[in-house]
Amino acid sequence: MAEQLFSYQHLFDFTKSVFIKMGCSNEHADTATQSLLSADLRGIDSHGVARLSGYVRLWEVKRINATPDIKIIHETPSTAVVDGDSGLGLVIAPFAMQIAIAKAKQVGTGWVSVQNSNHFGIAAHHAMMALQFDMLGIAMTNASPLVAPTFSIDKMLGTNPICVAAPAGVEPSFVADLATTTAANGKLEILQRKNLQTPNGWVQDAEGNSSTDANILKKGGALLPLGGDREHGSHKGYALGAVVDIFSALLSGANYAPWVPPFPAYVPMPSQQPGKGIGHFLGAMRVDAFRPAADFKKDMVHWIQGFRNAKTIPGEEKVLVPGDPEREYQAERMQNGIPLLDAVIEDLKQLSSKFELPFT
Amino acid sequence: MAEQLFSYQHLFDFTKSVFIKMGCSNEHADTATQSLLSADLRGIDSHGVARLSGYVRLWEVKRINATPDIKIIHETPSTAVVDGDSGLGLVIAPFAMQIAIAKAKQVGTGWVSVQNSNHFGIAAHHAMMALQFDMLGIAMTNASPLVAPTFSIDKMLGTNPICVAAPAGVEPSFVADLATTTAANGKLEILQRKNLQTPNGWVQDAEGNSSTDANILKKGGALLPLGGDREHGSHKGYALGAVVDIFSALLSGANYAPWVPPFPAYVPMPSQQPGKGIGHFLGAMRVDAFRPAADFKKDMVHWIQGFRNAKTIPGEEKVLVPGDPEREYQAERMQNGIPLLDAVIEDLKQLSSKFELPFT
Repeated sequence: MAEQLFSYQHLFDFTKSVFIKMGCSNEHADTATQSLLSADLRGIDSHGVARLSGYVRLWEVKRINATPDIKIIHETPSTAVVDGDSGLGLVIAPFAMQIAIAKAKQVGTGWVSVQNSNHFGIAAHHAMMALQFDMLGIAMTNASPLVAPTFSIDKMLGTNPICVAAPAGVEPSFVADLATTTAANGKLEILQRKNLQTPNGWVQDAEGNSSTDANILKKGGALLPLGGDREHGSHKGYALGAVVDIFSALLSGANYAPWVPPFPAYVPMPSQQPGKGIGHFLGAMRVDAFRPAADFKKDMVHWIQGFRNAKTIPGEEKVLVPGDPEREYQAERMQNGIPLLDAVIEDLKQLSSKFELPFT
Repeated sequence: MAEQLFSYQHLFDFTKSVFIKMGCSNEHADTATQSLLSADLRGIDSHGVARLSGYVRLWEVKRINATPDIKIIHETPSTAVVDGDSGLGLVIAPFAMQIAIAKAKQVGTGWVSVQNSNHFGIAAHHAMMALQFDMLGIAMTNASPLVAPTFSIDKMLGTNPICVAAPAGVEPSFVADLATTTAANGKLEILQRKNLQTPNGWVQDAEGNSSTDANILKKGGALLPLGGDREHGSHKGYALGAVVDIFSALLSGANYAPWVPPFPAYVPMPSQQPGKGIGHFLGAMRVDAFRPAADFKKDMVHWIQGFRNAKTIPGEEKVLVPGDPEREYQAERMQNGIPLLDAVIEDLKQLSSKFELPFT
């Protein structure tokens, strides 16, 4: 569990050079690196450079196309469907978000469903692209099946995250970014490394019984939808994950439900492919398509300050506003560096020798 | 806990006549009754005729305007803000949804944020209006503060429900309608009547300690966000409730957070009113603004059948698709009648004498 600190710039340069070696254009490599490293900066360590070798392996088995022809295949004034041509989701999602933003400039809102993509990193990075234009940003994606719906043994959905970002004037932006499960897979990995059990309500075993084994996914178990069990509202987490799947894949023509391709290149592809690749859904709503942005932001400041000043339960110092923890990580890590586990460093060193790129 | 069955038509005629007595137009009374009774039909008993006397009391204290001038106060091709003029949310929400649908016909999607409204019944009724046009429907609303965010003692949010409805061809439509809390207030009321405790994770007491007292809200306690506590993801339920508040009220200029007016007319109004009335958010997305509706519905059928055929955990017969339980209630109750508790019947009888209307 030893860790070392690396500067953002150091990791940026190395990661970008790996994408270049894969054959990405300079522009794509830049965009992909920004997307990927936003996870490390925001403290979502499971989705950052720890996954770089996973993307490389997908490219090696020809499931990622480094030079995709990403294009709109259908559109209306407020909508579009993008075909990602099997490219990096890290590049395709920002492309789609730019279309959503451009449409919001024209007609108030823009909504883009994406087919034929791959994993896009963290949803927040894409949703937050809208903030600089005084827009709300929305991002979601489906993912390979790890989650058993309420009453199911079979894993039918991914952790299917939803992000909503809203500008907030003099306060930092509101950024809610959440997997629709009780706990994301990355949380399990942390417990595995520490040899700890999970709380109740995170996972079930291969027979559908409640479990606290952090390694249960490797034994045929499943993550549980937000809520954990029926009595605690797991049917709601399941419904939200289902909505993400419908918006991201059924609207675009991507694979859905248990047929979403897995991230690890060594995991066999699903038995059928009803669509193309993985699906995302990106949205942008111009605040002043509803009311003057200054009025909205004044109210957001009032809203946020109300929550920050709420009385806390025993043992807690403050009520957080969605986005607070990640923003604190980002400030701290830009300053002091990004901590990487030895296993991740080893992974990057292997990429370094594979591509004959310096990494020290 | 005695119950009697009443036919839908019987309750419809009585409820409509009450709205007429309040001064609603025939058309508004019709719309309001359809909205209200959709809750009874779908098994959401807490939101149906059980609340009729509550609406009447709000009208008596002049917080509901029976003859509102509901109008668009701002719009773009894909968005609008509606001022409900303090009318019944039961009428205002369908008005706003019609605008969303009209805009979706024109530019692919339509999004309407509503200020100056009152409680709108169940979200599903409004979202489902989009289905007949081969559109996805979205409905959400904020509500008076009953929910303590993660780490908070103060009640800062309502149960803030989200509904997403999607057409599904030969299968019944997908309808996910969920309060962003572990359990809705109506579930507590059922336990109160039966003198039962709640499961863990539903409520906390006035000091912020975990509680299982179904009467705790009357003692200063609070409902908990979906997830229950931090370890089980309550920060996600809190974030989703916050998103509903932002879309419904910050975008429209309605009251938000702890300043949303209470439903019971006897509860004092909040200390400040940063906006007007209660806020809603309605959306419609034309399926064929993304892909041919027939292709989408074929995939929805495949999706739904995949879930229905998933292997179940021990003791459960089938995996449900969002909307299944409510649809079964509706079929059964249209056929056999709607069961009302004695307390609700008594309430309706009082309205019957107040307005000199027959109710037997």
